[in-house]
Amino acid sequence: MTNRNVNVQPAAGRAVEDQEVEIVERKGLGHPDSICDGIAESVSQALAQTYLDRVGTVLHYNTDETQLVAGDAAPAYGGGEVQEPIYLLIVGRATKEYEGTKIPAETIALEAAREYLEENFPHLDVGTDVVVDVRLGEGSGDLQTVFGEEGSVPMANDTSYGVGHAPLTETEQIVLNVERRLNGEYSDENPVVGQDIKVMGKREGDQIDVTVAAAAVDEYVANLDEYRDAVADVREYAEGVAREYTDREVTVHVNTADDYDDGAIYLTTTGTSAEQGDDGSVGRGNRANGLITPNRPMSMEATSGKNPVNHIGKIYNLLSTEIAQSVVADVDGIRQLQIRLLSQIGSPIDEPHVADATVVTEDGVSVSDIEDEVEAAIDAELADVTDITRRVIDGELSTF
Amino acid sequence: MTNRNVNVQPAAGRAVEDQEVEIVERKGLGHPDSICDGIAESVSQALAQTYLDRVGTVLHYNTDETQLVAGDAAPAYGGGEVQEPIYLLIVGRATKEYEGTKIPAETIALEAAREYLEENFPHLDVGTDVVVDVRLGEGSGDLQTVFGEEGSVPMANDTSYGVGHAPLTETEQIVLNVERRLNGEYSDENPVVGQDIKVMGKREGDQIDVTVAAAAVDEYVANLDEYRDAVADVREYAEGVAREYTDREVTVHVNTADDYDDGAIYLTTTGTSAEQGDDGSVGRGNRANGLITPNRPMSMEATSGKNPVNHIGKIYNLLSTEIAQSVVADVDGIRQLQIRLLSQIGSPIDEPHVADATVVTEDGVSVSDIEDEVEAAIDAELADVTDITRRVIDGELSTF
Amino acid sequence: MTNRNVNVQPAAGRAVEDQEVEIVERKGLGHPDSICDGIAESVSQALAQTYLDRVGTVLHYNTDETQLVAGDAAPAYGGGEVQEPIYLLIVGRATKEYEGTKIPAETIALEAAREYLEENFPHLDVGTDVVVDVRLGEGSGDLQTVFGEEGSVPMANDTSYGVGHAPLTETEQIVLNVERRLNGEYSDENPVVGQDIKVMGKREGDQIDVTVAAAAVDEYVANLDEYRDAVADVREYAEGVAREYTDREVTVHVNTADDYDDGAIYLTTTGTSAEQGDDGSVGRGNRANGLITPNRPMSMEATSGKNPVNHIGKIYNLLSTEIAQSVVADVDGIRQLQIRLLSQIGSPIDEPHVADATVVTEDGVSVSDIEDEVEAAIDAELADVTDITRRVIDGELSTF
Amino acid sequence: MTNRNVNVQPAAGRAVEDQEVEIVERKGLGHPDSICDGIAESVSQALAQTYLDRVGTVLHYNTDETQLVAGDAAPAYGGGEVQEPIYLLIVGRATKEYEGTKIPAETIALEAAREYLEENFPHLDVGTDVVVDVRLGEGSGDLQTVFGEEGSVPMANDTSYGVGHAPLTETEQIVLNVERRLNGEYSDENPVVGQDIKVMGKREGDQIDVTVAAAAVDEYVANLDEYRDAVADVREYAEGVAREYTDREVTVHVNTADDYDDGAIYLTTTGTSAEQGDDGSVGRGNRANGLITPNRPMSMEATSGKNPVNHIGKIYNLLSTEIAQSVVADVDGIRQLQIRLLSQIGSPIDEPHVADATVVTEDGVSVSDIEDEVEAAIDAELADVTDITRRVIDGELSTF
Repeated sequence: MTNRNVNVQPAAGRAVEDQEVEIVERKGLGHPDSICDGIAESVSQALAQTYLDRVGTVLHYNTDETQLVAGDAAPAYGGGEVQEPIYLLIVGRATKEYEGTKIPAETIALEAAREYLEENFPHLDVGTDVVVDVRLGEGSGDLQTVFGEEGSVPMANDTSYGVGHAPLTETEQIVLNVERRLNGEYSDENPVVGQDIKVMGKREGDQIDVTVAAAAVDEYVANLDEYRDAVADVREYAEGVAREYTDREVTVHVNTADDYDDGAIYLTTTGTSAEQGDDGSVGRGNRANGLITPNRPMSMEATSGKNPVNHIGKIYNLLSTEIAQSVVADVDGIRQLQIRLLSQIGSPIDEPHVADATVVTEDGVSVSDIEDEVEAAIDAELADVTDITRRVIDGELSTF
Repeated sequence: MTNRNVNVQPAAGRAVEDQEVEIVERKGLGHPDSICDGIAESVSQALAQTYLDRVGTVLHYNTDETQLVAGDAAPAYGGGEVQEPIYLLIVGRATKEYEGTKIPAETIALEAAREYLEENFPHLDVGTDVVVDVRLGEGSGDLQTVFGEEGSVPMANDTSYGVGHAPLTETEQIVLNVERRLNGEYSDENPVVGQDIKVMGKREGDQIDVTVAAAAVDEYVANLDEYRDAVADVREYAEGVAREYTDREVTVHVNTADDYDDGAIYLTTTGTSAEQGDDGSVGRGNRANGLITPNRPMSMEATSGKNPVNHIGKIYNLLSTEIAQSVVADVDGIRQLQIRLLSQIGSPIDEPHVADATVVTEDGVSVSDIEDEVEAAIDAELADVTDITRRVIDGELSTF
Repeated sequence: MTNRNVNVQPAAGRAVEDQEVEIVERKGLGHPDSICDGIAESVSQALAQTYLDRVGTVLHYNTDETQLVAGDAAPAYGGGEVQEPIYLLIVGRATKEYEGTKIPAETIALEAAREYLEENFPHLDVGTDVVVDVRLGEGSGDLQTVFGEEGSVPMANDTSYGVGHAPLTETEQIVLNVERRLNGEYSDENPVVGQDIKVMGKREGDQIDVTVAAAAVDEYVANLDEYRDAVADVREYAEGVAREYTDREVTVHVNTADDYDDGAIYLTTTGTSAEQGDDGSVGRGNRANGLITPNRPMSMEATSGKNPVNHIGKIYNLLSTEIAQSVVADVDGIRQLQIRLLSQIGSPIDEPHVADATVVTEDGVSVSDIEDEVEAAIDAELADVTDITRRVIDGELSTF
Repeated sequence: MTNRNVNVQPAAGRAVEDQEVEIVERKGLGHPDSICDGIAESVSQALAQTYLDRVGTVLHYNTDETQLVAGDAAPAYGGGEVQEPIYLLIVGRATKEYEGTKIPAETIALEAAREYLEENFPHLDVGTDVVVDVRLGEGSGDLQTVFGEEGSVPMANDTSYGVGHAPLTETEQIVLNVERRLNGEYSDENPVVGQDIKVMGKREGDQIDVTVAAAAVDEYVANLDEYRDAVADVREYAEGVAREYTDREVTVHVNTADDYDDGAIYLTTTGTSAEQGDDGSVGRGNRANGLITPNRPMSMEATSGKNPVNHIGKIYNLLSTEIAQSVVADVDGIRQLQIRLLSQIGSPIDEPHVADATVVTEDGVSVSDIEDEVEAAIDAELADVTDITRRVIDGELSTF
């Protein structure tokens, strides 16, 4: 039915949802590592779009190396200030000239970074609180060729690996959504909550502990009482979110490192700890599905900032996640699905060397019952691999 | 017998050695990511030692953020040259003054980086081929306190996670040792081999494919014939190394991206691809055991450059590996052992919240046969946790 | 009549106006050196004002070292673009903490620089076309003390020298005003004229040649014909301005390096040559009176960015110019006046070691006729020395 | 006799030697501004030599923009240390590729800077005490063409100006030689004297005050007594030097800002105030003759780092000084000679638009007596203009 090397097999162990101890983490939008991921990916999208606009095809680039050097700040009730700016260095490779057409890669990168920061960090004054610098070199010569013909499937130029999972466990859903919604609808209404929100979930049996570290924005905090209220509000909101995803016991802790007696609270001027003491870089935080999941195999690849046309690690990490989600949505009886793709150098990327599906089925379902269905679904997704590239360029897929 | 929360359990699945497909990777000493890891850790050791010498205790610091921006080079048979230098930015936090004693953190960092580069990269002219810059800020206020009393066990200040494995599979041993010995005894005798050696191992059943990408140093290559000879020699040597660790079928591939007709070969002036087009940063490559092992759970933590006194992620990653190796060495009948340590905020780091040992036993051995022995061994190692810190500072433990 | 050491003497030679050959130059607002001067002085004003606001006195700082590294651009008829950004590094010293009050010197500097650029360079997109970075260290310890009591006259802490002249010669007036008015009323009406306008005046006998190099802004230039028209318009305008200041023969040349046949014209995207290839730094261009005048003694001191409270070179350069202008305005019969002030370390700055007035009188007037009047005028100006400081901080005095 | 536009005329005033007040300054080798001058010129020589070696002609470059950002240090009796490194940014333009030949301009610059520092600053640990970075962009397109034919005289591409004087006054000779010999034979024997030596000479009538600020190197100073001895030794030596050049009254002051009671002394670890608080840049200090001479017309041009083939300001400043010295050596009866050269855009540089010689003759000699001799000497020197370029590239001519 398919000439792709798709292999469906039962998982050897229990689904993560059924393991005794589970740990999940998410570094939110304003975490210094995530700031770097976000900028790297924004720069990548802007470059890819520019290449398409100007020369009709995406040229060689990689911008997955943004480095953030923390600043120094003096937050204060009612509004403090940044003393020494954050320094943000955009690093990578880009093609700056192609058949006579010049591509202003560095100014594009700066503009994309600035727009990203201004859109997502309302309390950060770009150019004053943060210096954005850039060093985009040319790549090595042999990589500067164009990527294949329009519409064709690129060849894998490296042995690389991607892994994806579905569905998310309850703990994973909680961790992901608590952060996203705090950084979405909640902070829209409550500007006291900054963008630097880190969520850790730990499940032992049926007890889930959710630990939230959320930066408060000093401008909206008049005194300690208001701070305590803000913390209590976050806790209450996060508990509400968590309960939408589980019937297990949930306890939410917020800003556990605070010491009210010592006056040690998580107050910031800009909404991120990057303002004082926390450096960051790309690929050090969330994996492509937005989470850090020590209970599951993970890829070490930094997905953000990589070229979505030819970086096989980026494509396979996003694609394996998409496949897993799609198969689980379409095929009944799956309790846990892991998709693993391994590239074959020199072969088209829609023909991976190995495409493993490892399944834990629901009670009463055997792998053989669903094997054909799963294979067909994987095959269909692989056939559509270039769609991933397009969606990444359009910013439809999150990479961190 | 022990009041630590040690838990020994059988693994749910097969040992990695017995799985159908296994992938292992190692970024060698001269890979841009490893260069950053190495510098970050050297700087860390130098700072820790200086703090001990000057104030008797290790103060707050973290130097796990070195960023490398690739240069531009024109390698050529007989010796080319670097056109634009590599830019290396050491980033992190350090305490610069403590009770009236000044600590020249930035000059210490520069000196440590330079010594590291000069010792390990004979073809790289530090100061000409590479610019080493530094930005070490002060940390956030509340972290600048001293770490406990001399000799006492520090408290965990974060929820973090470490994981270690033993023994290495054959493929892991091959990947690790091929790189180490190429970068050791082999390159001592054959300076044509540069430090940037990347090794990928893929085992399918009993067939192991080892793919080596090894930078040649142009000064020692007069023409294409000599290059081909050098590549052939590396292949032969690597095969010999591999056969020391397995009876399985082994095929070694070297520099597969070369295209002799196009003149596209892996020639460098300095022995590393950082000279042209390959950026790097800390924590993006090998895990604490020197490998990237998608078949095994891994920690996302960057181990290199972190403070070995209080960074619980660093300590637990190194410690869990040490425990696993030690237990496997001492206790018979273990085919695979995974140690996972989870910290408890506010508790001494020798009392982890969870210490899981997941065991695959040899045929004929049950977990219950060895459970007590394993527990006791883990307990003893945990009691000696501060020894890890000492050995890291002394440079006895590799972190990447 | 005065206890200050004021010395009025006849000049040995002819007034510059009467010399055979005279050369005068002005680097306009948008010249890379002037951009640095302008930013250095803006940062200085912002810091001084902040110190006054927060601690009631101006603390130690010097910001006279801004460095501009040119970008790379591709100007084009109708609008081109910057390819690689200008890099602007603000360098200097500043007091960052004083008796418990923190001063965010670096973010103040960044903000001042950005405001200056946005106000003066409408075609330059700050943050995209130019990266503004900052490195303000603390000064050496003994300089970090406060400057005297409120209202008192500071002591000179260096042997330094200032020199001022009045009145301007016709050529000087032409050079100064052609640039100022092109960069003022003219460019308000004619946005095609960029800010980078350099004016050179050469007078031989009664023939004045004015050479203007004026950057055109590509957005307002559709083709070569429009460019030629723009150049012709500038020439006509400049001639008109020149004729207001002289009855001598005047010839104006504009953009003499253009070669229409080769298509080599002075087209820019941002209005300044800093976008492509022209670096700049502080103190390399105009002297405190806005001109470079090889026919007159000049001070080497960089006036822009220096601390206006205690930097004796800055104060004396501005003050000597003020004195010269004031005396010439008040005392009849002076054809040329040069004021030279030399500080005395350890003495109040209103009591210079030497205050020389060198006079060329009008025909029929002898120095002795006006000596007392001149001395009295100088004495009065010196008594009011701290007013210079105030006016500098308020931005009332131009420094370049 | 000559078709060059050489004009010999009597000076309007007195020779500087005969004026009432004379001020002379020299910033020594280790002054932050001079460090920048020295590096800029070393880089220039290295680039010029490389262009000659590789393509047979000097290509477009200018490296006259080195910026030094001071470090932070803790000098101490017996040996202190640098806390934060000096940051040195080499800025400029260079041609990096010419007809297929690549020129590694940035690594050449780094190497030249390092060699210069290591040769001249024995107490400065390059790479640890000072970070040397580089940003050499390409120049603007139309300047990247080659400079004329081999051996031909280049055309002036700018209106520029050079001025030179001879002979030096006694005060000038004292200031120049006190610094040079302290930084030469004296410091060879007395390593306690650092390279940062600033000398100010002030003559009032026949009284010469020489003020020396000389950094002591802490490694060679065990205590305050040794420091006082070192200062006394410098004073004695400087007096001896001064007396070789004058019969006037000379008083030498050394390190007048010291305050022994407060422990405020001029102690450094590296021999330069750049280690703590004193920034520097090119062209802000000595003129091409090594001095700052407010009594004489000076050019504002930064001579160091400029391209010696086509930068007319650099060439004319050096040439006018050479001419003045040569004429004074060859022609009797000259008390003071000033040579001023003004370029003519588009004409060969050996045919300046104006070549003025302004002479003060000895008593009993009239200008007309020596006019022809002076004209002929100037004419001969001009004919040999390209020799200046060669000598600059060979490092035979000092530029600061």
